[in-house]
Amino acid sequence: MKAIEKFRSSMAAKNSHLCVGLDTVLEKIPEHLKINGIDGMLEFNREIINATKPFAAAYKVNLAFYEQYGTDGYDLLKKTFELIPADCLSIADAKRGDIGNTSKAYAKAVFEELNADAITVNPYMGNDSVAPFLYNPEKFVFLLAFTSNPGSFDFQKLKIGGKELYKCVVEKSVTWASKDNLGFVVGATHPSEIADLREMIPDRLLLIPGIGTQGGDIPGTVAANGSSPFIINVSRDIIYQSQEVNFALAAGRRAEEYSELFRR
Amino acid sequence: MKAIEKFRSSMAAKNSHLCVGLDTVLEKIPEHLKINGIDGMLEFNREIINATKPFAAAYKVNLAFYEQYGTDGYDLLKKTFELIPADCLSIADAKRGDIGNTSKAYAKAVFEELNADAITVNPYMGNDSVAPFLYNPEKFVFLLAFTSNPGSFDFQKLKIGGKELYKCVVEKSVTWASKDNLGFVVGATHPSEIADLREMIPDRLLLIPGIGTQGGDIPGTVAANGSSPFIINVSRDIIYQSQEVNFALAAGRRAEEYSELFRR
Repeated sequence: MKAIEKFRSSMAAKNSHLCVGLDTVLEKIPEHLKINGIDGMLEFNREIINATKPFAAAYKVNLAFYEQYGTDGYDLLKKTFELIPADCLSIADAKRGDIGNTSKAYAKAVFEELNADAITVNPYMGNDSVAPFLYNPEKFVFLLAFTSNPGSFDFQKLKIGGKELYKCVVEKSVTWASKDNLGFVVGATHPSEIADLREMIPDRLLLIPGIGTQGGDIPGTVAANGSSPFIINVSRDIIYQSQEVNFALAAGRRAEEYSELFRR
Repeated sequence: MKAIEKFRSSMAAKNSHLCVGLDTVLEKIPEHLKINGIDGMLEFNREIINATKPFAAAYKVNLAFYEQYGTDGYDLLKKTFELIPADCLSIADAKRGDIGNTSKAYAKAVFEELNADAITVNPYMGNDSVAPFLYNPEKFVFLLAFTSNPGSFDFQKLKIGGKELYKCVVEKSVTWASKDNLGFVVGATHPSEIADLREMIPDRLLLIPGIGTQGGDIPGTVAANGSSPFIINVSRDIIYQSQEVNFALAAGRRAEEYSELFRR
């Protein structure tokens, strides 16, 4: 099934715009799992996924948190992708991008080795750095537009002839692939810019991080999207809700709350 | 030893500005090594490094080519960094960049797990996405400025009030760290822009890809740098010079030729 169709049917079936972010780090998982190291992290991910899957349309795995554990972490990353239910969109939050033949190797890593449905890509290097991720029409690319962090103002908001850089990125890149293969990342910390973008791209899927620990605006973000397709990611505020043995229960409850808050 | 000091002494001792890029892929290594798979790739890297080290001030390892082989590839990546001679600058060409706590995990992966001296970082997400890579004063960051690929014209050359985006990136980011910790990537396909940049940043180390297969301009690039510090990377045109059993000999000769061409 095409990634975009998987997302549409998962969102509809669960009436949910929630993406759960598996930003798993050893220091933050409950004590009874921590003592098992990498194996404990896999068990943590398994329990979090099982508890949250009734409410999650998508899962996002940020590669950084796994790479920091070296080869064992890469193995954990692969096994974590295997745990993501087949009916949920799986997103490799990798923020990759390089010259053509190199991006091709990254695409192979993420789409073939990890078997992710979608990837986040950095637009700075332009068309030929993004194109290899669009080669397989089954897969989906979320290009960074206006990110959730404070540094997003350093360059993304600079104006080119009156138009902000992130809008130039959106305007140019929509010519590279259809709405079935290319969407954007915009932070929930910028609801008025989401509303602006929705005039340009009403039918593109947005991946929206920045809720929870980062302090994004939920009602503002939901309203700004109108009837356009979106997924909102929450990571730490769901997966680290509890340090108890039954931590997954708390994560599941929190996921349910968020999925309700994200409804239009 | 600080990364920048290691580079300075290696460059001086070998009278070389050459960086050898270990863009190793199974399909391109000689037949007698190919049959051994990942182990053959490690042996390839070992022989290439041994043959080129008299002429190389630095080695650059592009993570994409290793990640495409999954967990085994990540293991090969780690072992490849261990092969790089201690007197050469080792660069993880990773083009990473994410929100603060995530970039911190990437920094741990590259500087602690892989033990690289330096990393390439994408500037699009701004200050807090780059800062975690600058935390360890022993290490060095090459921020992407004007890259060697055709797509570099899509956004990097857009003008903000008369000044190109890549110059805005350079102008702002030089306030984030000194020349001992922060330099830039500029493609050898853009010698006149290198000359321009040298007026802004005469004392910053530049990492210059795009020579060889990508067709960059050697005399133009060397001249544009004047007396400023630079390293020029060559990957495919050195490491894949020969498919014979004694392939490393040809790679070593080619590395020597390039190191001579890169002298001022």
